[in-house]
Amino acid sequence: MQTSPLATPFPDMPPIDGVELRVSRARYKTWDRCDLTFVTLAEGTTVAGVLTQSRCPSPEVEWCRAALTLGTARALVVNAGNSNAFTGSRGRAAVEAIAARVAATHACKPSDVFVASTGVIGVPLPVDKAEAGLDAAFTAAPCGWLDMAETIGTTDTFPKGASTTAVVDGRTVTLVGVIKGSGMIAPDMATMLGFVFTDAAVDPAFLQRALTAANAPSFSCITVDGDTSTSDTVLAFATGKAGNRPLTDDDSLGADAFRAALADLCRQLALLVVRDGEGATKLIRIDVDGAESDRSAHRIAMSIANSPLVKTAIAGEDANWGRVVMAVGKAGEPAERDSLSIRFGATQVASGGLAVEGYDEAPVASHLKGQEVEIGVDLNLGEGRATVWSCDLTHGYISINADYRS
Amino acid sequence: MQTSPLATPFPDMPPIDGVELRVSRARYKTWDRCDLTFVTLAEGTTVAGVLTQSRCPSPEVEWCRAALTLGTARALVVNAGNSNAFTGSRGRAAVEAIAARVAATHACKPSDVFVASTGVIGVPLPVDKAEAGLDAAFTAAPCGWLDMAETIGTTDTFPKGASTTAVVDGRTVTLVGVIKGSGMIAPDMATMLGFVFTDAAVDPAFLQRALTAANAPSFSCITVDGDTSTSDTVLAFATGKAGNRPLTDDDSLGADAFRAALADLCRQLALLVVRDGEGATKLIRIDVDGAESDRSAHRIAMSIANSPLVKTAIAGEDANWGRVVMAVGKAGEPAERDSLSIRFGATQVASGGLAVEGYDEAPVASHLKGQEVEIGVDLNLGEGRATVWSCDLTHGYISINADYRS
Repeated sequence: MQTSPLATPFPDMPPIDGVELRVSRARYKTWDRCDLTFVTLAEGTTVAGVLTQSRCPSPEVEWCRAALTLGTARALVVNAGNSNAFTGSRGRAAVEAIAARVAATHACKPSDVFVASTGVIGVPLPVDKAEAGLDAAFTAAPCGWLDMAETIGTTDTFPKGASTTAVVDGRTVTLVGVIKGSGMIAPDMATMLGFVFTDAAVDPAFLQRALTAANAPSFSCITVDGDTSTSDTVLAFATGKAGNRPLTDDDSLGADAFRAALADLCRQLALLVVRDGEGATKLIRIDVDGAESDRSAHRIAMSIANSPLVKTAIAGEDANWGRVVMAVGKAGEPAERDSLSIRFGATQVASGGLAVEGYDEAPVASHLKGQEVEIGVDLNLGEGRATVWSCDLTHGYISINADYRS
Repeated sequence: MQTSPLATPFPDMPPIDGVELRVSRARYKTWDRCDLTFVTLAEGTTVAGVLTQSRCPSPEVEWCRAALTLGTARALVVNAGNSNAFTGSRGRAAVEAIAARVAATHACKPSDVFVASTGVIGVPLPVDKAEAGLDAAFTAAPCGWLDMAETIGTTDTFPKGASTTAVVDGRTVTLVGVIKGSGMIAPDMATMLGFVFTDAAVDPAFLQRALTAANAPSFSCITVDGDTSTSDTVLAFATGKAGNRPLTDDDSLGADAFRAALADLCRQLALLVVRDGEGATKLIRIDVDGAESDRSAHRIAMSIANSPLVKTAIAGEDANWGRVVMAVGKAGEPAERDSLSIRFGATQVASGGLAVEGYDEAPVASHLKGQEVEIGVDLNLGEGRATVWSCDLTHGYISINADYRS
């Protein structure tokens, strides 16, 4: 698979005190690459997560949802090449076997072991391969973020990670995230698989609130194809090694800084997924203003972001704002045709219910030739606003998905 | 444009007493083909319609919505090549000018003139071309259904029509329909442009109820790309020339037969649109059973029908039922993963929350190689059911829409 033209280089990311990474070959598919990631977390690590809203979630998602209620974590296992979704009791047994093996060898409770898997749906994760892979990982040398980012990927064309820092209680804390995802992306609550690690000390309830808040304008605002995965998972782990007094609520010293850093990190990670959207050649940012509410603005923005006709027009570098009108109209949200205005980049192309007469097409054409396209819609109804990100729909998407075989 | 591989021959369709068809060249685009259809309807013709639910409808849609409240019709004008949508007061003025010109020359009220337009969004319909086209049509020789079906088309690759009969009050009445549509198809309430004509005598309120009922399982159950047009219009005209006592309510002689015939006709027309879906190579029928309600079944079926991953899998003849699970899961409707079953054609491939062990892949592969693919989902929750039709998503769709220029 060719690297996405929207790819960005993997950044230099610092280690997180209390987090150790290892990878191994479980060979879930007939490939010769690492596909199992094993992360150990220092005692006292807290955890939060957001998971798919799919009604048909994988057993991994159900496992994490249950384990998250306890708020503590000691290990994370990520399998790539098999999502283990829709595999009945055999799938559930595989997750339990993984957690039991880690718990037995690492002196922790099974519920402290988080598990995520990604890949083909409907094939039970082979327990023997998982156990052999785990055993190999247990004895492997620790590795770095790039290894983890590469190991959790499947159809991804480039490894994706981001990091940031915040000052909390006088200490500089670090936040690092890695993520995978390229197709079946309309996370709604989370994206394919994303993992955030920090050395900050954070109470699990506060970490969960901060992650939920960070998720809303990031992972919940991206789409590649409008298809929501059965396995979407974002987990955040806080080892507490930075030595700050634990963040417990909004009044804790540094709570604002931590929340802002986490939100920034999630936004960076989410955008990396869109940049690796299947077949994508352009990153599309859609801003909707003046809607009746933020929720309404989000639904209109997503209607535009998921419209195959808008996405193919952008692929063709065609300033076809009529298709944007269509997508606003079909969203089912309050909209007044005759007060609607639309821009591409900085150029207003339609306003007051019709085309802006004699608008300058040159800056629009040049904006659409770029790799980052902005569509702005102002409904002029209220104060609601939203920003979402999508990518164009190209022959590449068809080739990847019509030729895909499990 | 190459003819869709799913095309069917245009049928032999009888004239309808009280309906006269004429076509002309208004030259809305730089093409040398007829693009204006003018239909005159006998005095006493009743009319019913279903129109797009878009919040940004064309002025034609608004005009028809207002005129439908009166229930009578004397003429229909259809413009192809320009939808006149999102054109402000100039677009409204163009529709009024068309209705006024027909009313003046044909001794009827402007509100008896129905107008529909299809084509590019955002360019006001040129009144001078419309008027010249109308004048040419007024003096043209009457033509047949095939001429009308070809004249109302835009990106359609084949002309589409269907007819049927019913015995009402001892008389055989005839129903004929023509339709256009290929992309921007998720009609919700109606499809791009469809016109039904009958010589039956039908009270307009009854005609409206029958059309609304016929629309629900036909036009509202098809999708090509999930994109709802700003111009979707289906109108049904009844000239009354068959001489039956007018159908006024459910107890009228022949009411059941007429409703069944109208429903059958709408279903035939709707399927023709999917058969001409942009880039389509396969017609996909999706049956959902066992849902909590019919409405829930419909939403799940549409989630499958609109999933780019399901549609590309069918294009690739890949029995990727995991993507069907995904689409069920994302629909947001009640679903129990572990009681879900899925079939391709007649072969059960997943059941009870996992793959059917050792199912015979040969009939599935052979079914997927055909032009008509059936996906069946049983939720095993309740009695709700729905059937919808879609088509596959291919390179053809991308070529048509990424290269399209107004």
